Amino acid sequence: MKCRKCPGKAVLSIPRHNTALCSPCLTEYAHAQVERAIGREKMCTKEDKILVAVSGGKDSLALWDMLRKLGYQADGLYVDLGIGQYSIRSREKAEAFAESRNATLFTQDATPDESIGIRELADLVRRPTCATCGCIKRYQFNRTAVDQDYDVLATGHNLDDEAARLMGNVLHWQQEFLEKQSPVLPASMEGFAKKIKPLYRLTEREIAAYCVVNSIDYIVQDCPMATGSRLLVYKEALNVIEQASPGSKQSFYWGFLDQQRKKAKSDQPSISDQDRATLHPCEECGQPTSATICSYCKLMAKAKIHQKVS
Amino acid sequence: MKCRKCPGKAVLSIPRHNTALCSPCLTEYAHAQVERAIGREKMCTKEDKILVAVSGGKDSLALWDMLRKLGYQADGLYVDLGIGQYSIRSREKAEAFAESRNATLFTQDATPDESIGIRELADLVRRPTCATCGCIKRYQFNRTAVDQDYDVLATGHNLDDEAARLMGNVLHWQQEFLEKQSPVLPASMEGFAKKIKPLYRLTEREIAAYCVVNSIDYIVQDCPMATGSRLLVYKEALNVIEQASPGSKQSFYWGFLDQQRKKAKSDQPSISDQDRATLHPCEECGQPTSATICSYCKLMAKAKIHQKVS
Repeated sequence: MKCRKCPGKAVLSIPRHNTALCSPCLTEYAHAQVERAIGREKMCTKEDKILVAVSGGKDSLALWDMLRKLGYQADGLYVDLGIGQYSIRSREKAEAFAESRNATLFTQDATPDESIGIRELADLVRRPTCATCGCIKRYQFNRTAVDQDYDVLATGHNLDDEAARLMGNVLHWQQEFLEKQSPVLPASMEGFAKKIKPLYRLTEREIAAYCVVNSIDYIVQDCPMATGSRLLVYKEALNVIEQASPGSKQSFYWGFLDQQRKKAKSDQPSISDQDRATLHPCEECGQPTSATICSYCKLMAKAKIHQKVS
Repeated sequence: MKCRKCPGKAVLSIPRHNTALCSPCLTEYAHAQVERAIGREKMCTKEDKILVAVSGGKDSLALWDMLRKLGYQADGLYVDLGIGQYSIRSREKAEAFAESRNATLFTQDATPDESIGIRELADLVRRPTCATCGCIKRYQFNRTAVDQDYDVLATGHNLDDEAARLMGNVLHWQQEFLEKQSPVLPASMEGFAKKIKPLYRLTEREIAAYCVVNSIDYIVQDCPMATGSRLLVYKEALNVIEQASPGSKQSFYWGFLDQQRKKAKSDQPSISDQDRATLHPCEECGQPTSATICSYCKLMAKAKIHQKVS
């Protein structure tokens, strides 16, 4: 298979663009897609301080790598969820990446001490593990971004992630979640950092290939807590469709974004605007919440009671 | 496996309802779902003359069987598409069903004579075979219903069909098609018969089982022209999701219908209302069309030119 851009040997076919690329052209393509995402959605500038949410997986490390190579000021934050060997190995990958590139990586623990992991915490509050993990990560990433004066918080969500999330929202006709799904969410007065997803134009497969050709050593194993998660099922279903009609995921998600842009032009307040109007500082930590105490502080309070009892 | 309704032996598990049913209870369940569909959507009454679009497959024969058993006045119309052995065998199934039940079945040919089948016709007009077939069937079913004074035209579209069609419309964000997707379309002044889909609450699997336990002999083979069709791909993708979360198809399609009902209450004219306002009689056949000559007449004109040439 030959590269469609130069005389080189292709390392990846990209059926949705009817092309195939060699290593240097693949890197160039990935960088161009990220630049296009950043430019089109007005995500950030080279003057902004960016905090990358780093998991040690391919997406977040590729994102961090690309932002730095493209000349953005990007530091990383790794949140350790205490999921046994998986967390130990993913932390090692994140730290090794930072060290080899002389990049700044913050690390934080998700749970109050080593006696309790994310699974035990989820059991305590009787919520699914992935929902509990999401609550903690959103909180810690946002809080660090705001407290450390970062302009933007960047996450490694890719086209597959966003299309799968959209599929879930559409299957359940969740209008409220649909309105909140965007590759960029503005900062808010109440204490939400600006959030961006610069990889939304690249697929998992393209990002994995980018990591290989750019010698990015990432944790290949999926989070063991995610087994059987709905998002994985939606990804599988979308892959069935993509296989038969390459470009389906992209036209599904990008078509949705086009619709959202048209709606935004018609001056109606969105549900998320209305939501945000009801936010105020958590009485415990000062982060924005619609309740008196935010979900994160409630979670941590339960964890502390558990520690005293055990 | 025991029946959940009586002491009998279950013949079918229905995970989306968390149940399993024996033969008589399955028949009762299917009849109840059809009655519920008819009642909820005000499809028809027992005074109405119903024309069933019969293909010889499980859905249309099961529908015809159920409507008759439930006391509705239902005749059938079979349109022969000239697809070799497939059409010969499916016609035999339709005719055998009608004969054994002493029911009235009309039969019509889709093409002007035997020298040209649906595939050749599609090639002539350079359109996909399924689109050409759809054009002819919609035309002939509607025309017969209107000309023969039927109150309602019933088709065998099931939950899998409707969910797959919805998936296609959602994946491409086809707002216009979304607005037209309904289990009941009212008759229109311009010459459209009222159209109903009484099987929209039953899955393919349930209908196939209904046929088996009610000794309905149908053509099992799918239409050979449909191989690789997008609807089959969407069905496969939905089956991946249904397998992981039983009830997903149902909540996807029924949730959509709930939304449509809410929209209908807010007095805005729908796109389909606006569309219909532009319809007038075809200059050739008098059937409703938005052009001077309807698509069917254009198709037949090309077929006649072909006959003269060959």
